[in-house]
This record gives sequence, structure tokens and C-alpha cells, in this order.
Amino acid sequence: MARYKKDQPTSYALGTTLVFELLKRKPSLAKRLYINSKQNRDETYASLLSFAKENHIPVIENNEKIFRELSEKENCMAIGEFGKKEESLSINENHIVLVNPSNLGNLGTIMRSMAGFGFLNLAIIKPAADPFDPKTVRASMGAIFNLHVKRYDSFDDYEKEFPNHHLYPFMLQTKNSIKTVAKEAPFSLIFGNEATGLDRSFLEKGTPVLIPHSDLIDSLNLDNACSIAFYEFSR
Amino acid sequence: MARYKKDQPTSYALGTTLVFELLKRKPSLAKRLYINSKQNRDETYASLLSFAKENHIPVIENNEKIFRELSEKENCMAIGEFGKKEESLSINENHIVLVNPSNLGNLGTIMRSMAGFGFLNLAIIKPAADPFDPKTVRASMGAIFNLHVKRYDSFDDYEKEFPNHHLYPFMLQTKNSIKTVAKEAPFSLIFGNEATGLDRSFLEKGTPVLIPHSDLIDSLNLDNACSIAFYEFSR
Repeated sequence: MARYKKDQPTSYALGTTLVFELLKRKPSLAKRLYINSKQNRDETYASLLSFAKENHIPVIENNEKIFRELSEKENCMAIGEFGKKEESLSINENHIVLVNPSNLGNLGTIMRSMAGFGFLNLAIIKPAADPFDPKTVRASMGAIFNLHVKRYDSFDDYEKEFPNHHLYPFMLQTKNSIKTVAKEAPFSLIFGNEATGLDRSFLEKGTPVLIPHSDLIDSLNLDNACSIAFYEFSR
Repeated sequence: MARYKKDQPTSYALGTTLVFELLKRKPSLAKRLYINSKQNRDETYASLLSFAKENHIPVIENNEKIFRELSEKENCMAIGEFGKKEESLSINENHIVLVNPSNLGNLGTIMRSMAGFGFLNLAIIKPAADPFDPKTVRASMGAIFNLHVKRYDSFDDYEKEFPNHHLYPFMLQTKNSIKTVAKEAPFSLIFGNEATGLDRSFLEKGTPVLIPHSDLIDSLNLDNACSIAFYEFSR
């Protein structure tokens, strides 16, 4: 078994915490449970086995290689292999749309904040970082297993599927402050790439929104901007 | 010259963007300017030389080794070496206090958000990640050069120096929502370590504050929580 590659049909939840999130939230996606031979035969171990049995997930306890290959951490005691399944977004719920996100870690922390503020539908416009990469899963702290994640070839494809969503592209080229803009549901909060943001064509989409900041910085970090937006739009 | 070590008296701003931030905001700290021999002799180059001359900063153009040792990026064209100088926090301004932050990248993005919301005074309670590490400087996108940063051996030391600041420790063990809590200046927004948060003793300090989130996650990522707090407290 080689290191994770983005074109493979499965990915990995690394570490006991993430494995439990997988087994609790999306047991149907779990394909295999690897347990490190160094894992103590304690309550955690019993609980892992019990979840696996309940959901008919094969348990493999003698594969040291996969731990060496997938985890840099010495203390990774369990790995959950899961199917990378995209799911349709709910038509009546609010959406988060990330256009060309490029950073695996940012993508994960955005998922974590999404779950924290009750946004459970994530559209990703390609090209984009792999939302199922083990690094993203880890940065999400398992929050990915609470979300519907779907990738689209273009923003147009997304927009056509959800014509009734109110679009809020986050951009520096507008004066509509997030503090005062009227917020109508169901909405789509749209964010661009970490380095380049959204291109100017998004000024014509719905209601562009600005998070005002001082001129000491060029922009906020993407996941910080997202978190502020999630906070304000979930008031 | 060896790779950066945290006990050395100087650190490095890597890349042209950060070097300009250093030269514009804290020229007195700049010790040396290294320019990559691959840097084109263009306007950027002329501007770097002009800033250096104006501030009497030595320019070194034939040290390829320092680029190899300090930067993983092929396209790093300039490095600014600067003195790691702590500065007293302003007694009449609001403060951000990070207790035992451990992640260099988080620390940098927090600095970036601080500058974005006009918070220019950062207290760091040791043990803590090095605020002057080149990785932190890079994650801050140069925002560190807008801040007063001071390290303290203990929170008590900080508290004694600023007895008139209203303390707002961010904690999960309180019910005071950030949305409704009375906000009195000058204030200190206090955040704990990424993994462990603030210990319960902070429940007795000032007014503990909660950023409410769903039970799908255990906590928000530190820099995301900070950004939301900066946003809400700068309203």
C-alpha cells in the first residue's frame, strides 16, 4: 500500500479521535479499521472494536507499514479507511462555496468552523485542494464527517443547480459591509482562493460583501475570513 | 551561518513582500538586506536598494547559502535580517494576550488578524512558540512589524503591569456569550493554548467569554476564535 494519492477512491482518518468521528457520523463510509499494535487493550480499544463489529467494518491489527506511511506522529494508534463519497447539497439549507481553495489545512479548519456554526453543506469549485486528503481530514478535526461535500467543475454549474440561493461573494472590491448587509436565506457564502480571492466577475453575482479591516493588511487569512462570516451570518 | 535558532538575537523576513513590510514599518530593526542574485534588476530591486540606502542597511547580494538554508521556496528573492526586539505594550490601548500558544503558523495568522482589526499590542505568556521565528513572520504576512510584542514569564506578571485593563478570558466553561457581554475598554482579550485552552483559574479573572458553537465540534481553531473575537470587540 502506497502513501495516499488523490485519485484513489478511499482516504484515511488518522488517530483515534478522527476514527471515532468517522465511525459515529459516517459509519457507512468506513471500509477498514487499522489498529496499531502499540494500542493498549483498554476502553478505547474495546470501543473501537465494538463500533467496527456493529458496522461490519474489517479490523486489521498487524499492519505497521500503513502507520509509518500515513502518519508522522508516533502516537497514531488507529486509522480509519473510508470511501471518498461526495453528497448532494441540501436545496433548502445554506451553503458555503469555496472557489479554488488551494491549502489542505485551511480547507480543514474551514470545515471545522462550518460545523461549529451549523453550516453543513460545502461546494468546492475546481481546481481545488482535495477535501478528502488525510491532512484536510485531520485539520477538520473530523468535522468533514458532518458535512455534505460536493465538487463542481465551475461556479456556473453550482449556480444552475441552486437558482434560488441568495449569493454573497466575499470580496475586497465592494463597500457592502458584512455588519449591515441584509441577510436572506437560503444563502451561499462564497469565498475565493487564498492568494487571489474572487475575480471581479463575482461583483455581478448576488450581493458582494466586505469584511472591513484596517489598511495595515492586504486581506484576512481565508479561514479567518470564513469564520467571521459564519459567525455573523449565523446570528 | 546556520539555520534560524530561537536563541539568536536576529531573525528573518523571507521574500520581497515581507522585506518591504520590515523596511517600511520597522526600518530601525533591519540589520542586513540579502538580495538573491536571481532577482531581476527591476523596479522592485531599485526600491529595495533605495530603502536600504535611506536607512543605512547593509546590502548583501552574493550569499546564495542563506537563501538555500532559510527558504524552501525557489522564488524567495530577498531576505531581511532584523533584530528581535520586544516592546512595551501601550497602557491605554487594548491588548491581546496569548497564553502558551504553541503553533508558529497560528501565531502569525493571529498577528495578521490583530493588525486587520486594529489591535496592535500582543502579550505572550511563556512557554510559547517563538513570535519572531521566520515561519511566524511569514504567516503574519509582515503584520508583526506593526505590533508591539512582549513576552511574560507568567500571566500574573502581565496582570500586575496592567491593573486597569478589563480582562476577557475566552473559555468554554462559561455561559457569557460574546454577542451580549458588556465590552469595556481598555480590555485584554485572553486566549489559551491550541489544545488545552485556558485553565479553570481564568474563570476568576475579569469576565470570561464564550463564542457559542454547535456540539458538532469540541472547539474552534485558535486563530479562528481569535478572529471572531477581534471582529466582535472592534465593532
